[in-house]
Amino acid sequence: LRTGFPEVIWGQGKTTNQIAQIIEVMRSRSVSERESRNPVVMATRIEPEVYSELQLKIPDLKYYASARICALVPPQLEPQYHGTISIISAGTADLPVAEEAAITAELCGFGVKRLWDVGVAGIHRLLSNRHVLTEANVLIVVAGMEGALASVVAGLADCPVIAVPTSIGYGASFGGLAPLLTMLNSCAAGVGVVNIDNGFGAAILAGQILRTADKLSNSGFKQD
Amino acid sequence: LRTGFPEVIWGQGKTTNQIAQIIEVMRSRSVSERESRNPVVMATRIEPEVYSELQLKIPDLKYYASARICALVPPQLEPQYHGTISIISAGTADLPVAEEAAITAELCGFGVKRLWDVGVAGIHRLLSNRHVLTEANVLIVVAGMEGALASVVAGLADCPVIAVPTSIGYGASFGGLAPLLTMLNSCAAGVGVVNIDNGFGAAILAGQILRTADKLSNSGFKQD
Amino acid sequence: LRTGFPEVIWGQGKTTNQIAQIIEVMRSRSVSERESRNPVVMATRIEPEVYSELQLKIPDLKYYASARICALVPPQLEPQYHGTISIISAGTADLPVAEEAAITAELCGFGVKRLWDVGVAGIHRLLSNRHVLTEANVLIVVAGMEGALASVVAGLADCPVIAVPTSIGYGASFGGLAPLLTMLNSCAAGVGVVNIDNGFGAAILAGQILRTADKLSNSGFKQD
Amino acid sequence: LRTGFPEVIWGQGKTTNQIAQIIEVMRSRSVSERESRNPVVMATRIEPEVYSELQLKIPDLKYYASARICALVPPQLEPQYHGTISIISAGTADLPVAEEAAITAELCGFGVKRLWDVGVAGIHRLLSNRHVLTEANVLIVVAGMEGALASVVAGLADCPVIAVPTSIGYGASFGGLAPLLTMLNSCAAGVGVVNIDNGFGAAILAGQILRTADKLSNSGFKQD
Amino acid sequence: LRTGFPEVIWGQGKTTNQIAQIIEVMRSRSVSERESRNPVVMATRIEPEVYSELQLKIPDLKYYASARICALVPPQLEPQYHGTISIISAGTADLPVAEEAAITAELCGFGVKRLWDVGVAGIHRLLSNRHVLTEANVLIVVAGMEGALASVVAGLADCPVIAVPTSIGYGASFGGLAPLLTMLNSCAAGVGVVNIDNGFGAAILAGQILRTADKLSNSGFKQD
Amino acid sequence: LRTGFPEVIWGQGKTTNQIAQIIEVMRSRSVSERESRNPVVMATRIEPEVYSELQLKIPDLKYYASARICALVPPQLEPQYHGTISIISAGTADLPVAEEAAITAELCGFGVKRLWDVGVAGIHRLLSNRHVLTEANVLIVVAGMEGALASVVAGLADCPVIAVPTSIGYGASFGGLAPLLTMLNSCAAGVGVVNIDNGFGAAILAGQILRTADKLSNSGFKQD
Amino acid sequence: LRTGFPEVIWGQGKTTNQIAQIIEVMRSRSVSERESRNPVVMATRIEPEVYSELQLKIPDLKYYASARICALVPPQLEPQYHGTISIISAGTADLPVAEEAAITAELCGFGVKRLWDVGVAGIHRLLSNRHVLTEANVLIVVAGMEGALASVVAGLADCPVIAVPTSIGYGASFGGLAPLLTMLNSCAAGVGVVNIDNGFGAAILAGQILRTADKLSNSGFKQD
Amino acid sequence: LRTGFPEVIWGQGKTTNQIAQIIEVMRSRSVSERESRNPVVMATRIEPEVYSELQLKIPDLKYYASARICALVPPQLEPQYHGTISIISAGTADLPVAEEAAITAELCGFGVKRLWDVGVAGIHRLLSNRHVLTEANVLIVVAGMEGALASVVAGLADCPVIAVPTSIGYGASFGGLAPLLTMLNSCAAGVGVVNIDNGFGAAILAGQILRTADKLSNSGFKQD
Ligand SMILES: Nc1ncnc2c1ncn2[C@@H]1O[C@H](COP(=O)(O)O)[C@@H](O)[C@H]1O
Ligand SMILES: Nc1ncnc2c1ncn2[C@@H]1O[C@H](COP(=O)(O)O)[C@@H](O)[C@H]1O
Ligand SMILES: Nc1ncnc2c1ncn2[C@@H]1O[C@H](COP(=O)(O)O)[C@@H](O)[C@H]1O
Ligand SMILES: Nc1ncnc2c1ncn2[C@@H]1O[C@H](COP(=O)(O)O)[C@@H](O)[C@H]1O
Ligand SMILES: [Mg+2]
Ligand SMILES: [Mg+2]
Ligand SMILES: [Mg+2]
Ligand SMILES: [Mg+2]
Ligand SMILES: [Mg+2]
Ligand SMILES: [Mg+2]
Ligand SMILES: [Mg+2]
Ligand SMILES: [Mg+2]
Repeated sequence: LRTGFPEVIWGQGKTTNQIAQIIEVMRSRSVSERESRNPVVMATRIEPEVYSELQLKIPDLKYYASARICALVPPQLEPQYHGTISIISAGTADLPVAEEAAITAELCGFGVKRLWDVGVAGIHRLLSNRHVLTEANVLIVVAGMEGALASVVAGLADCPVIAVPTSIGYGASFGGLAPLLTMLNSCAAGVGVVNIDNGFGAAILAGQILRTADKLSNSGFKQD
Repeated sequence: LRTGFPEVIWGQGKTTNQIAQIIEVMRSRSVSERESRNPVVMATRIEPEVYSELQLKIPDLKYYASARICALVPPQLEPQYHGTISIISAGTADLPVAEEAAITAELCGFGVKRLWDVGVAGIHRLLSNRHVLTEANVLIVVAGMEGALASVVAGLADCPVIAVPTSIGYGASFGGLAPLLTMLNSCAAGVGVVNIDNGFGAAILAGQILRTADKLSNSGFKQD
Repeated sequence: LRTGFPEVIWGQGKTTNQIAQIIEVMRSRSVSERESRNPVVMATRIEPEVYSELQLKIPDLKYYASARICALVPPQLEPQYHGTISIISAGTADLPVAEEAAITAELCGFGVKRLWDVGVAGIHRLLSNRHVLTEANVLIVVAGMEGALASVVAGLADCPVIAVPTSIGYGASFGGLAPLLTMLNSCAAGVGVVNIDNGFGAAILAGQILRTADKLSNSGFKQD
Repeated sequence: LRTGFPEVIWGQGKTTNQIAQIIEVMRSRSVSERESRNPVVMATRIEPEVYSELQLKIPDLKYYASARICALVPPQLEPQYHGTISIISAGTADLPVAEEAAITAELCGFGVKRLWDVGVAGIHRLLSNRHVLTEANVLIVVAGMEGALASVVAGLADCPVIAVPTSIGYGASFGGLAPLLTMLNSCAAGVGVVNIDNGFGAAILAGQILRTADKLSNSGFKQD
Repeated sequence: LRTGFPEVIWGQGKTTNQIAQIIEVMRSRSVSERESRNPVVMATRIEPEVYSELQLKIPDLKYYASARICALVPPQLEPQYHGTISIISAGTADLPVAEEAAITAELCGFGVKRLWDVGVAGIHRLLSNRHVLTEANVLIVVAGMEGALASVVAGLADCPVIAVPTSIGYGASFGGLAPLLTMLNSCAAGVGVVNIDNGFGAAILAGQILRTADKLSNSGFKQD
Repeated sequence: LRTGFPEVIWGQGKTTNQIAQIIEVMRSRSVSERESRNPVVMATRIEPEVYSELQLKIPDLKYYASARICALVPPQLEPQYHGTISIISAGTADLPVAEEAAITAELCGFGVKRLWDVGVAGIHRLLSNRHVLTEANVLIVVAGMEGALASVVAGLADCPVIAVPTSIGYGASFGGLAPLLTMLNSCAAGVGVVNIDNGFGAAILAGQILRTADKLSNSGFKQD
Repeated sequence: LRTGFPEVIWGQGKTTNQIAQIIEVMRSRSVSERESRNPVVMATRIEPEVYSELQLKIPDLKYYASARICALVPPQLEPQYHGTISIISAGTADLPVAEEAAITAELCGFGVKRLWDVGVAGIHRLLSNRHVLTEANVLIVVAGMEGALASVVAGLADCPVIAVPTSIGYGASFGGLAPLLTMLNSCAAGVGVVNIDNGFGAAILAGQILRTADKLSNSGFKQD
Repeated sequence: LRTGFPEVIWGQGKTTNQIAQIIEVMRSRSVSERESRNPVVMATRIEPEVYSELQLKIPDLKYYASARICALVPPQLEPQYHGTISIISAGTADLPVAEEAAITAELCGFGVKRLWDVGVAGIHRLLSNRHVLTEANVLIVVAGMEGALASVVAGLADCPVIAVPTSIGYGASFGGLAPLLTMLNSCAAGVGVVNIDNGFGAAILAGQILRTADKLSNSGFKQD
């Protein structure tokens, strides 16, 4: 991955042994390289049973159940960049994907605000939380079914919006195709879409956006 | 078609001669049958050039350009049923489909309210017209691109909602597939979807809904 | 959901604990608000095993096995609106979806008539029950395989028709895509389509249609 | 093609010159071979303008405009096989495909009965012509939009049914995909489906079916 | 189903109890009606475990394991119609579908010839069995993967060809879509296609074809 | 659109008259509101012939032919934000989309660097321009055919990457579906995808990202 | 492109001016570089009208009409590699793609054998030309409609087979998707598939295969 | 299969008994025919549990776990042809498909070089192994997710490239459709694509390519 981000393992389709081994290799590499300012090692798509086995081999491995992520984390994990990633989700069933985004962002050193269960069927809940949208530096919108939330949020917000379609739904949702197309065709401009259920990817993109701000500032552009 | 609705010709893929001939056949049938309380004859999907030719053959044929509909209409055409069909559209380019719905409904004897250009990218315009939603007896929502408007409207309204996806859009809209899937997966329950660009079908369904109310009332159900 | 409808939980993809908890929250909210004229709480897509566990926690929870719905229901549940929702299904395997529509409608306070197993392969069965179609105020048609029943019914009936494609079939049915497309392209106008297997959504839309009549009457339109 | 059938050219995507040349080659081959009992040469998918040019080069070439077929035909063309192919179509716009089937069958030496415009939206027209179905030896059903006619016919008839989906329709018809899937998933068993708009192929299959009877009889099976 | 064919139950998605019950209902109906010349009752898509349970309830129920069909059959089951249905399959894995066609045809009273494992990858095996093709009265071709066998057979044979795509394959076979499209686009005319894996439907169509011959003969057409 | 961005018209599917009228309305609104720091009015998807007509009505309207954009622009148009948007395209045919992104970004007040024709078939051209990637603050990657460029760039760069699939290609490109899927499945994390051919949307998203830096700086976060 | 192959321009979507300019640039580059052993410059997808204009600017530009290719060719163009590329096509309409492959291969310095119009509907024509298959060093199979020819050829031949699906067909051919899937699922192993209508790509791959042989021989592997 | 290749069984969807039986039949046939220069018998898609059972029946059966292949192999298995097949894979999860290709090629008597885990997200790993590409005689590229590796490799290499898309990925990968389309649309010419996950087919095609060189040499073409 990119400089300064944690080492990440995609857990899906790997055996417990493989995952454990890669985690330890990454841990030692992080340590030896030293220069890493964020010696976090994380794995996504880890089911509870897999974590139970991993924990026996790596006792200091932490588990974020709702995000299905496990990680080696330093004692205190605090935001290392300015700005906040606000994550908004439509329904209860979208939670695992939304949390994958949230925990990934936090493990990468970013500040996160969560706003769950504000689907457009009851739009007043979203509207009464408009400050979350207006105060955000970057927004991640997680929604399944028809995925309309992304368009509505992008219409209300004035910052970059990252849309994550989820596979939540049935029938003509076709495994997340419906919200994916919705988000790609958003009538509100300025929405970047990631793969279905890809909370991880959304967090990395959001992180890159906040780091861009950091770098631009560091290069002194506000001196003039 | 059903009792009491006008005679309708689907103009697409028919020659001008065929259309003119069917119109005259239908006119004479309407006249001879007499009992028809709505002797309207209409044709949908009529391009301006086709109308120019039709007009030469049938001078009293009226044209509704934005709806691409032409019709034989009685001198005064007034609502013959109680209640109102409110039609809401997302963007300027959806107008032809929205007007197809509106003119069809009016020719069928229903009162129509129009609310154009209230797409979710600028949701305040929709919200500042909430009375249109709350006062409606039936709602028709016409939207292309991602079609998110239908979900938002269904979440705000408390009446039957008919959703019409349009083929307006490009790329991953796939000719209207995107808003079609959006509307079918609406997280707000109680939305009935018709074919892409089918303003006509939406108006007929809306009309049936208002006639149901009429019939139920006529059968005296409020006497008790 | 909309005013006057029951509180509804979409059971699919939720744990038994989550469902039990939401039911109790909704029960207390219904009670405290009081003004609710229909203090029903219901959950759809509940498999028998899930109900077995739920019942231990909520002894007064009722189960409608064929509809996969469980609900808290008042002692006597009687129609609270005028008119009838007639539900027609094509084959034995479509029953769960048809019953999901029927039970939902009844729990929402509507009168329901059922006509099962009248697929178009033996159209005489449908034709010898034509009175069900002509007497209906709203029709829900549930069909899998090729879904042709919706077109035939819409051609015979003179009231709003709601079509529910089901995932029953195999091969080129593609999980319900075949009947979905059939229903969207119905050559008989005035058919509103809901998502594949969405008996619940069909019932809500049908309910809204019957309530429209009620509201129009209450607003005194028949006085003149 | 098979023994005893006419020589056929698929006109689509060929130049007028190519078509004219192939027709003459086939004519001379037919003549020289002599033994052919059906010296017909035909070309399908011929637009009127193409025929105008062909006629200049081959004055005795006949044109069947509604079927878009041109052919060299012997002075009197009479059925050469027992039995009848009954062809049923749903809407006016399906006519070219239905006629392609009808003219092909006649040029191949089969007796044809036509029943046009009996779509399921007005099923009474089909039912009042039930004798066409019950008297048929083979049925060809031509329908676009949702294609439900094939299932209804197969449920009523007691003979082989060949279903031809057409590209007539719009939106979610997806160029004929909707009626194609409908016909493949027909809940009435015993329906064979051909390609979208393939009236020609349906006629050839129907012809083979009638010839099977002829051959079985000739092989003396009724002697016992 | 149609006159003279057995009563058939589609076993897929039915419980053992439901199947057992329907079989007994059909048996008594067959007996009471008497006029049935073929008192066979059959059920398709019956897995071995389901049959084990059914057998306990209906001891005289016979099982055709490779066809996944169980049936009540009269002591001797002999062809009742003239002519033969020849069934050709491409690969070993297509066997269940090919046998579903074969057993269905036999239970319906037709003579069947089987030619298994003659896929086009080794076309010599097909060519050295050409007599099967030339002697056939009707052909059923069963093939998965790319389904090319149907085109080749139709090119060699001179009788009606029914093509059955199977879901055998992987990857870009997309559950049988590949052979389905192959068969619909067959460059050899006169192929009727049924649904993916629908051996049953192919047999019924083939049976109708042979019965057409029978009826035409009985109506005395060979007297002249 | 969002605060501080120009007024934008989507030209596709609008008549010349409609476009001219909207431009003038927007011009007067911009002037009257005054507070706008960027009084640019622009229209996308304008073909040369349309511009020829527009120019007659609005003489000061400028045309960017390769981008198919026309705009009212202030005398000098200079970057108003810090940082640079680097735009990379794969092939010559992708140019219109890449320029749509570039001109949009410039009209919005952002600095732009262009790197054209660096498709992965000749990856050395991309590699010898690596400084463009490493110096970028935001990257827009425009590619048709298989769209592999986005993954390669995202793997090399350390900033947010916005991927724009184009409809350039043929056959199994399916109008841009191929590069769209490629970009959504990018094995390099942190890629946000916009609709096929949507250069405009990519530029707006990139602009939002650079403005995030500006805002964060303004809010004084670097003071500490 | 690769070493030793001609310079190639993809003509589709380029203006005549652009094409003429690129040809001249490539000509001078070829000349100046000298070391090129094959100073051919070619452009594919050139319609006749485009060539007419090009010829005015570049008089020595040659046109291969059936292949839609134009090229600068040295006085005598002779095979420069051992072995032969045999190209087989199914129908007349596939000719342009088959010739694109043939002319490309010849311009690249390879010997080509053509076998046209041997579709599987009349498999005897293919079988009576079996020597073409058995003598080939590489085979290119070009077929539209259902594309079955590739499987049959691969089953008969004992050399690498490159399959080119074409967009020839209609209806469920879906622009070449049908033969594409057929070829990808070929039951005969060892078939490499290129994009729909991509005769050019097939020729390049075939050329690489013959060059591999050349290189292996040159590296002296037959000395032992 | 073709002359000189091993006998191969496609294990998927066959019972252990069927596989064991076919292996033994093939072994005896190989022995009796004698002339076979490569008496290898192999089966693909064999899960570990299946092998455990097979081993009991056929003790000398060898298992290649990572390739899911089992085989009867001669004591020493050495390359029998000149040249090398280099196999390149993108990610850890693509290993089973890559090994299926590798082991198949080795069992067929070809020399194999492996280069694993060189996905384009970290393109430096591929670039620092460029010698593998430049030294290869034939390349097989195995990649899932977006499959971009194939285009990059084809752009760098100068030999035939065979691309194998894998089903590794999720969401909009649609079971391997994404990399399949990527590879078919490769902007680098000369890539032949096989079915999703079809490592076996890629190896056979690669083998045919190397054998072409052998045959051309044997036919003496280097004598001159
Ligand atoms: N949940 C996820 N979704 C998509 N990509 C992921 C996910 N988790 C990890 N990755 C990516 O996968 C890479 C590791 O893949 P692997 O080498 O297979 O473990 C990481 O560098 C990430 O870019
Ligand atoms: N725009 C439309 N979209 C869908 N259906 C229509 C439309 N206009 C008319 N129809 C239907 O088409 C029928 C007439 O079709 P036809 O007989 O082909 O003229 C009418 O009865 C309507 O049900
Ligand atoms: N394997 C099968 N595939 C398709 N249709 C079948 C099959 N088996 C039975 N059927 C049809 O299903 C009908 C019975 O359906 P059911 O009433 O659900 O048992 C029969 O009349 C047949 O038309
Ligand atoms: N007919 C064709 N189909 C696919 N690719 C082609 C074709 N003709 C040329 N190409 C490729 O397109 C490249 C040139 O593209 P361009 O720079 O746009 O002219 C060549 O190097 C070829 O690889
Ligand atoms: Mg906004
Ligand atoms: Mg509502
Ligand atoms: Mg009706
Ligand atoms: Mg019947
Ligand atoms: Mg034949
Ligand atoms: Mg990077
Ligand atoms: Mg072979
Ligand atoms: Mg190369």
